[in-house]
Amino acid sequence: MTEEQISTPALVIDLATVERNLQRMQDYAGQHQLNVRPHTKTHKSVYMAGRQLAHGAAGLTVAKVGEAEEMAKAGNDILVAYPYMDPARRAALVELAKNKTVRVAVDNATALEALGDAATSAGVKVGVLVDVDTGFHRTGVQTAEQALKLAQATERFKGLRFDGLFTFPGHIKNKAMMADGQAEVSRTLREVLDLLKKSGIAAPVVSGGSTPTSYFAHHVPEYTEIRPGTYIYNDHNCLAAGWCSIEDCAARLVCTVVSDAVPGKVVLDAGSKALTSDRLGPDPEKGGHGLLPEYPGAKVVRLSEEHGEVDLAACAIRPKVGDRVHVIPNHICPCVNLFDNVYFKRADGSLELARVDARGKVS
Amino acid sequence: MTEEQISTPALVIDLATVERNLQRMQDYAGQHQLNVRPHTKTHKSVYMAGRQLAHGAAGLTVAKVGEAEEMAKAGNDILVAYPYMDPARRAALVELAKNKTVRVAVDNATALEALGDAATSAGVKVGVLVDVDTGFHRTGVQTAEQALKLAQATERFKGLRFDGLFTFPGHIKNKAMMADGQAEVSRTLREVLDLLKKSGIAAPVVSGGSTPTSYFAHHVPEYTEIRPGTYIYNDHNCLAAGWCSIEDCAARLVCTVVSDAVPGKVVLDAGSKALTSDRLGPDPEKGGHGLLPEYPGAKVVRLSEEHGEVDLAACAIRPKVGDRVHVIPNHICPCVNLFDNVYFKRADGSLELARVDARGKVS
Repeated sequence: MTEEQISTPALVIDLATVERNLQRMQDYAGQHQLNVRPHTKTHKSVYMAGRQLAHGAAGLTVAKVGEAEEMAKAGNDILVAYPYMDPARRAALVELAKNKTVRVAVDNATALEALGDAATSAGVKVGVLVDVDTGFHRTGVQTAEQALKLAQATERFKGLRFDGLFTFPGHIKNKAMMADGQAEVSRTLREVLDLLKKSGIAAPVVSGGSTPTSYFAHHVPEYTEIRPGTYIYNDHNCLAAGWCSIEDCAARLVCTVVSDAVPGKVVLDAGSKALTSDRLGPDPEKGGHGLLPEYPGAKVVRLSEEHGEVDLAACAIRPKVGDRVHVIPNHICPCVNLFDNVYFKRADGSLELARVDARGKVS
Repeated sequence: MTEEQISTPALVIDLATVERNLQRMQDYAGQHQLNVRPHTKTHKSVYMAGRQLAHGAAGLTVAKVGEAEEMAKAGNDILVAYPYMDPARRAALVELAKNKTVRVAVDNATALEALGDAATSAGVKVGVLVDVDTGFHRTGVQTAEQALKLAQATERFKGLRFDGLFTFPGHIKNKAMMADGQAEVSRTLREVLDLLKKSGIAAPVVSGGSTPTSYFAHHVPEYTEIRPGTYIYNDHNCLAAGWCSIEDCAARLVCTVVSDAVPGKVVLDAGSKALTSDRLGPDPEKGGHGLLPEYPGAKVVRLSEEHGEVDLAACAIRPKVGDRVHVIPNHICPCVNLFDNVYFKRADGSLELARVDARGKVS
């Protein structure tokens, strides 16, 4: 199958670019004695999880238990990087722990105790990472004392095992914030680790990182592992912030021009139900809704659910009705999640239909 | 099954509210001799399309051909309100026209000719509505002369039948814009209709409307039918703009509070992969990411992919970790499209799992 033969809009993933992206991250981590535990929410693909493990990933990360169940087909060591809470989710998690190494991030006693009871009753062992807020202020305990308390509470449950700390430095969004941001992450984690040590509690795992901070992870010497997600495909956000080059963007949405009736623009057959409404992180007001690499100056100025309006005022060359164009989405993770299937593109240009295995696993 | 037994996040649709919403629209249209041709992109459900027809809808509207194929299970008369263009889409459309009444909106000669050739070859008849831009400036011919040209071109194809005009007044976003906006829509359509009449071309169908403009459709006397979509469920957008009351909001996302570690907020297990990143139309900067009807003052201030952060600073009562809360999404249409299944809630409070039949039909 070739690109010309598929219906649009369709998401095409270049496999050679994926391999380069995976190897680059693994090389960096190897140089700094860091484990890579990729967040699979980006690709939601058992095949891609397998490739990450083949490149040397130490395990996999998921957000939801439904994702964990899918990713368990690729790997045996799974971190649910999410404050799970919910009876059905807990039951599924404990079930999974019967045959797999399962860890969860926890930031409150209610969630910890419910999990501890469930794991103990089921006769399984679930690893706990205490989620520490290092500046993003989304989840995570606020003080070293709170972290210690949760670590100690963990040890009271036969079904739980305290494995260490977890953080997500999502607040570090650009290079200007990097040095100070990473220093604060390091300082906060250090404080918790010191208190744990004083209390005789070992924390073998310190899990952190995001795609933007990944290549700066060695500035947080407390980390033992990083959890980049987007790096496998990259996107317009990564490109605009300078985290990758255009050659590193593995995913492109193939679209057809369906209208040119309104002067100065064309309409693509991809709207918010294909590209999502996620704005461009580094420039939300003016960044548009995706990048058209073949049409410099073109800007996706407005999305309806199924229409993508492209302003061509600053564009020397213009696509015609019926032409196919490529769009690099602003944020690839929720975009992938809109498709039951994507296409993998091989070196010879041929395409292979590939299921997005964990698509829509919200619970 | 009761709401307490389902995994979260889950979208629950109250059937009694749906029935009221459908009947209200039908009553209004009946009073003004307007056909209702609901846009099924909101619910993407064969069952709901059937309910709309049972209430008296004259036919169904879809955006994509994949949706048309699903909705053809409920009805025999389908309008593809979209400038289709793309070989696979065209083939599917012509196939569908073998057994169903199919109409498409067209705004350019390239699309018209490709469709005309395909329909003629297949020996089917496809109805054409010429898309007229009445102010939204997304698609649609710009002048009455262009509309006439397309109508005349339609008549040259044995496989096509010119049925009239189509417009989408998406630019009329609030009540302040209504009077002038509808007057301009009327004026623009009238000009095209006058020119067609002078050229001896009948235009039996004039299709327009959106949920916001629906109850003001009688101010565009040219309309023969309206195509509201969101009205079946309504959402936070409709509520904030004054198009409906809270009792008319049929869809609520049931969420679990998963974290309260960061002071002043709680985190729900629903982020942009459940609520979408669609901002609140009437107040994008401050409107937040959904309404919590049971917690006045609570505001969904930030979404990650799987986290919804709720600021409780202005909230007298606060949900605890493990509590379930309801969120009325900003924009229900793309939200429904994230779920393989939703739950229909019956009058006795029991829930029934219901497939979102046309979910993800982007092509």
